[in-house]
Amino acid sequence: MSSWGERIKISVFGESHGNGIGVVIDGLPSGEALDMEKLYLQMSRRAPGKDKTATPRLEKDIPEILSGVLDSTTTGAPLCAVIRNTNTRSQDYGNVLSCPRPGHADYTGFVRYGGFNDISGGGHFSGRLTAPLTFAGAVCRQMLERRGIKTAAHIASIGNVRDSLFDPADIPDELIEKLNTSRFGLIDDTKEEPMRALVEKCRLSQDSIGGIVECAVTGMPAGVGSPMFEGIENLISSIVFGIPAVKGIEFGAGFAAAEMRGSENNDEFFYDGDTVRTRTNNHGGILGGISSGMPIVFRAAFKPTPSISRQQNTVDLQKHENAVLEIHGRHDPCIVPRAVPVVEAAAALAAAELLARAQKL
Amino acid sequence: MSSWGERIKISVFGESHGNGIGVVIDGLPSGEALDMEKLYLQMSRRAPGKDKTATPRLEKDIPEILSGVLDSTTTGAPLCAVIRNTNTRSQDYGNVLSCPRPGHADYTGFVRYGGFNDISGGGHFSGRLTAPLTFAGAVCRQMLERRGIKTAAHIASIGNVRDSLFDPADIPDELIEKLNTSRFGLIDDTKEEPMRALVEKCRLSQDSIGGIVECAVTGMPAGVGSPMFEGIENLISSIVFGIPAVKGIEFGAGFAAAEMRGSENNDEFFYDGDTVRTRTNNHGGILGGISSGMPIVFRAAFKPTPSISRQQNTVDLQKHENAVLEIHGRHDPCIVPRAVPVVEAAAALAAAELLARAQKL
Amino acid sequence: MSSWGERIKISVFGESHGNGIGVVIDGLPSGEALDMEKLYLQMSRRAPGKDKTATPRLEKDIPEILSGVLDSTTTGAPLCAVIRNTNTRSQDYGNVLSCPRPGHADYTGFVRYGGFNDISGGGHFSGRLTAPLTFAGAVCRQMLERRGIKTAAHIASIGNVRDSLFDPADIPDELIEKLNTSRFGLIDDTKEEPMRALVEKCRLSQDSIGGIVECAVTGMPAGVGSPMFEGIENLISSIVFGIPAVKGIEFGAGFAAAEMRGSENNDEFFYDGDTVRTRTNNHGGILGGISSGMPIVFRAAFKPTPSISRQQNTVDLQKHENAVLEIHGRHDPCIVPRAVPVVEAAAALAAAELLARAQKL
Amino acid sequence: MSSWGERIKISVFGESHGNGIGVVIDGLPSGEALDMEKLYLQMSRRAPGKDKTATPRLEKDIPEILSGVLDSTTTGAPLCAVIRNTNTRSQDYGNVLSCPRPGHADYTGFVRYGGFNDISGGGHFSGRLTAPLTFAGAVCRQMLERRGIKTAAHIASIGNVRDSLFDPADIPDELIEKLNTSRFGLIDDTKEEPMRALVEKCRLSQDSIGGIVECAVTGMPAGVGSPMFEGIENLISSIVFGIPAVKGIEFGAGFAAAEMRGSENNDEFFYDGDTVRTRTNNHGGILGGISSGMPIVFRAAFKPTPSISRQQNTVDLQKHENAVLEIHGRHDPCIVPRAVPVVEAAAALAAAELLARAQKL
Repeated sequence: MSSWGERIKISVFGESHGNGIGVVIDGLPSGEALDMEKLYLQMSRRAPGKDKTATPRLEKDIPEILSGVLDSTTTGAPLCAVIRNTNTRSQDYGNVLSCPRPGHADYTGFVRYGGFNDISGGGHFSGRLTAPLTFAGAVCRQMLERRGIKTAAHIASIGNVRDSLFDPADIPDELIEKLNTSRFGLIDDTKEEPMRALVEKCRLSQDSIGGIVECAVTGMPAGVGSPMFEGIENLISSIVFGIPAVKGIEFGAGFAAAEMRGSENNDEFFYDGDTVRTRTNNHGGILGGISSGMPIVFRAAFKPTPSISRQQNTVDLQKHENAVLEIHGRHDPCIVPRAVPVVEAAAALAAAELLARAQKL
Repeated sequence: MSSWGERIKISVFGESHGNGIGVVIDGLPSGEALDMEKLYLQMSRRAPGKDKTATPRLEKDIPEILSGVLDSTTTGAPLCAVIRNTNTRSQDYGNVLSCPRPGHADYTGFVRYGGFNDISGGGHFSGRLTAPLTFAGAVCRQMLERRGIKTAAHIASIGNVRDSLFDPADIPDELIEKLNTSRFGLIDDTKEEPMRALVEKCRLSQDSIGGIVECAVTGMPAGVGSPMFEGIENLISSIVFGIPAVKGIEFGAGFAAAEMRGSENNDEFFYDGDTVRTRTNNHGGILGGISSGMPIVFRAAFKPTPSISRQQNTVDLQKHENAVLEIHGRHDPCIVPRAVPVVEAAAALAAAELLARAQKL
Repeated sequence: MSSWGERIKISVFGESHGNGIGVVIDGLPSGEALDMEKLYLQMSRRAPGKDKTATPRLEKDIPEILSGVLDSTTTGAPLCAVIRNTNTRSQDYGNVLSCPRPGHADYTGFVRYGGFNDISGGGHFSGRLTAPLTFAGAVCRQMLERRGIKTAAHIASIGNVRDSLFDPADIPDELIEKLNTSRFGLIDDTKEEPMRALVEKCRLSQDSIGGIVECAVTGMPAGVGSPMFEGIENLISSIVFGIPAVKGIEFGAGFAAAEMRGSENNDEFFYDGDTVRTRTNNHGGILGGISSGMPIVFRAAFKPTPSISRQQNTVDLQKHENAVLEIHGRHDPCIVPRAVPVVEAAAALAAAELLARAQKL
Repeated sequence: MSSWGERIKISVFGESHGNGIGVVIDGLPSGEALDMEKLYLQMSRRAPGKDKTATPRLEKDIPEILSGVLDSTTTGAPLCAVIRNTNTRSQDYGNVLSCPRPGHADYTGFVRYGGFNDISGGGHFSGRLTAPLTFAGAVCRQMLERRGIKTAAHIASIGNVRDSLFDPADIPDELIEKLNTSRFGLIDDTKEEPMRALVEKCRLSQDSIGGIVECAVTGMPAGVGSPMFEGIENLISSIVFGIPAVKGIEFGAGFAAAEMRGSENNDEFFYDGDTVRTRTNNHGGILGGISSGMPIVFRAAFKPTPSISRQQNTVDLQKHENAVLEIHGRHDPCIVPRAVPVVEAAAALAAAELLARAQKL
């Protein structure tokens, strides 16, 4: 199922090399102005072909809006946006059908869909499906910004090269603005060169590399979310794990909290004028599943792109025997830079859904 | 919202110091024999008061089944189980209402519920609500075991004391059986003493400590799950973050994959007789959201119990001023040992839901 | 599945002759005062044993609230209410297990649950399960009344004896109040005697009789609901068909509209002061799935109670042969009078859900 | 919200005069062959402009499939089909924005969407949105037919001209086949002339007329569905009320059962060979929300088209005063003939969802 959300529902469709991909967004408030330039900017941040960290495949990724918008304003009816695939089904994937790529969904997709799934370019499993997700998030971002809520993400690490992390207790607007328009989002810009060097090194060695994206949502009012299964962590992770290659998520101090004492991890409350705030933000803006008013901060771990050009051992599902696979396709040696706006988009969708459930949208 | 699931739905209710807590489980198959002794065993693994790592509060935690079971067999109608609270609302929490405990949901609950939530013992936010979750999971486990699917968890770490981790490519049944009946679940039993020592040290210093629980689901057939938002990671995290104090989750290699190369992280496929398996299992049994047939493995990070007896700075919400809080309650210095069966239960519920969605239950 | 709702979720459990029945209501706003006397009044309107139209089975039907209420006010946590069955599993149903009663769910339940369902008293299919539904609706009614929204229903007909219908364009508060406390709800009280006479006649001839309940929701603001699948008609019918024996529902002019011209059926708009109203209300307060501000009016058709004492032809599922069945149980010859508060309750739940989705609760 | 379904999800989008309309169908099984000619046949049955009962607007209504189908076979990924609007936004609706049409959703849509909804041609409320619904149903029909399940509907009445009704206990395949390809579906073909005459009379008098569609689903195995809120009646009505102009639905004997005795309404069971059947089918194939194996039969009441060319009284929402409206558009004087394939499609979607939930798809 490629549908998500309850009050703001998205239904993502498409296969990498089919006629088109897109998304239906249902439940949007009416009367929300859409700045198309801003939408396209977010799409272009995710689009491939910009630099050497990305796949050489070129796509315009300009969505056509079929419904739900009149005079650049939402009508309240479902918004459908379609992106045509101009670069369609190739022969690059001929051998993948019988010989699944290690680390990829070829094998599980084969079993799940009985061999009927469209294997070209990864089909519906392709990272290309993050384009409509980014679009849907970009629509929500504009609504959220009018309500004082912002999302921003950066490359926390590629391999062992690390950016600075957010100060979760204080994320300045200028940083958010800088990240929101960046194509290689970093807090510490001096890390761009070593990160790019590492990616290039992996590319040259026919390999790939993973990384971590850190994301913040600021301006969320306190009291949004619910205990147990409708908590903010549950909701954000339910969409973030929809981004291909994500294998872990942590909120606030996250896994580090597992080594901490309560006296270290607890965040003191204090009055900042009339507002209750915490001095530190190990809780990542969430206590008991509910927002505290502090920035919501999480990190998502991306595994390295499984599609590498090296020879790999696998099986041949038709011959029922072990096999050796060499892939000839166009693949990112590191998807993390392009994943940054996707994670922001997922956070924006989650934030909009949370507000709607809290009757505050 | 304290409801979870679509085909196997649970609705958890209760407040720590109210009349009772419990769960309704809807969508269970009919004709499933329930071994009550086994159910109670799982409940007792989670129950407090067994040793010094746990709160001294004593509860019988014997659920009464009101419906859905006849002659120890499921009828297919909703199963409701109720646990009476024998140890009810005390005066221990008087000051918590106006002075929220750092790291706890007191403040966010106050904002969310406008001060009407039952604050005693944490109310609906209490870890005590994991008792009905454990019960629901224990029901599902028995169904799953008849279908060859097992869940087992252990204490991967408390603070900086670490157990061995699962070999995710090969989890023997004997280990699963040992863990399923353990009250302090470890792979390497020599770690019990240093872990207990660390917890005791924290207790004596009026502090608490976090940890990590690792969980495996074995026997899941390949091809279960879906891409994007109905993936196994999405579903498991949507329930695991319903366990209080969880701040992170990772599948397979998880965050470590972010530092790996594709050539390291990719798991080679091979034929093991007629079965396709992988030699390693960095993918944690999940590719593209779908099961590969290998063990599903994940780890959940638990923050340290926020309720510590030390003086802490906070705010007084009635006086609108900063305040100092000292808590007099009964609290676990480390919840991780008791969380082990809860994580197993959550995994069992997710596995049952996955099978039902895949039309294999 | 016995769960309903998205923002106000109910999970109904229990079997007619089991340990207890009840409901969990999740998503209630906090801080809502509950008048227990009013709750019990609604329960007593539905309770059996009051007069000859009803089954002679006596039940106290006094629910115990286990959670979600503190000091007679909702806490915002799930509210669980349990009604103990004092009159439990009898031998009256011995032959029903192999010989399904015509018109009843015995056969379909047998197939659905493989013979494991609790057959006594109808098990989970019993009309007794409308008691927790009535309770849940009664909780919502109190919330709705504080927001100016009222629900009222009456016996539109029993067999061919008809009450007057609502004037859907003008339903006075006094009528609503009268109906809300009535045990045999009628607009035209002179119809009570002929209705009771008809029911008694059916009872004496070991037969039963059907009828229609008409229900109105007044005070719903305009603009609530959505087109297509989240329309008010969709939502109300999704819960009303959860009441056993309902076989039809119509809104506004309903089936009569199928014989009307547009010029007859269209309701003219006009300004009543600053408020837009319609002079007639054939649309039943709903246009395009959305409330118009006029009273929402619908009618539900109840089939005659299938359990009659006459000999009936059926099958013997064990012997695999045709059979003759004679039922020895306690059954209402007409459930319509007792169904009136149940329909009101269903309408109240739907109204609360609609308001929550519209972010107006 | 224009999304429906849980295991077979549809998300319908589009506005009457926007760029395009369509549907995403998520959850389809993979490997289902699609006969495109049969799909187009169903679309053409609903398409306007065929005869005088319908609007003169001409549309090709040929959907383009963007995803989810490869080599005319479902891949298991979401199927998106788009129909371009070739006949777009006109000036015919200028006065509707301020003067809502009686009986139409103009007013409620205005309140719901704050005046931002696309009013042209009815926008998202338009009957034109039944085209993607018909498409989605036509996809499901082909799957269902391979599993022995068929759906067929006919015009039960237009105004007071009535067709014969189904014999619900015995619906022959030949009748189903005839209806499935008919553009004016009747059991008794002699009723076509008087029905068309009535519609023409209404058209000439600038009026419109309502009617009833009766629909049957045959071949559904016994034991599908659930008690209470997941019953077959609940599910079918949740989608049928998504068809514009439906104001009532009844199953089996429906409202007529309200006047019947139990001894009349109860359907005797008997063994027909090894199969349990009922001699009559007043229960419409559904007992306790669950299929009995007999044909599922229901009727939906359609109100007369609200758009009539006569002068009508209404309000002017901009001037805040009463007003007189004359509509200049293209409208069906009777939508019932075109609604027949739409009701069949809705029934097919419901049947597919029921099978999936029952783990039988």
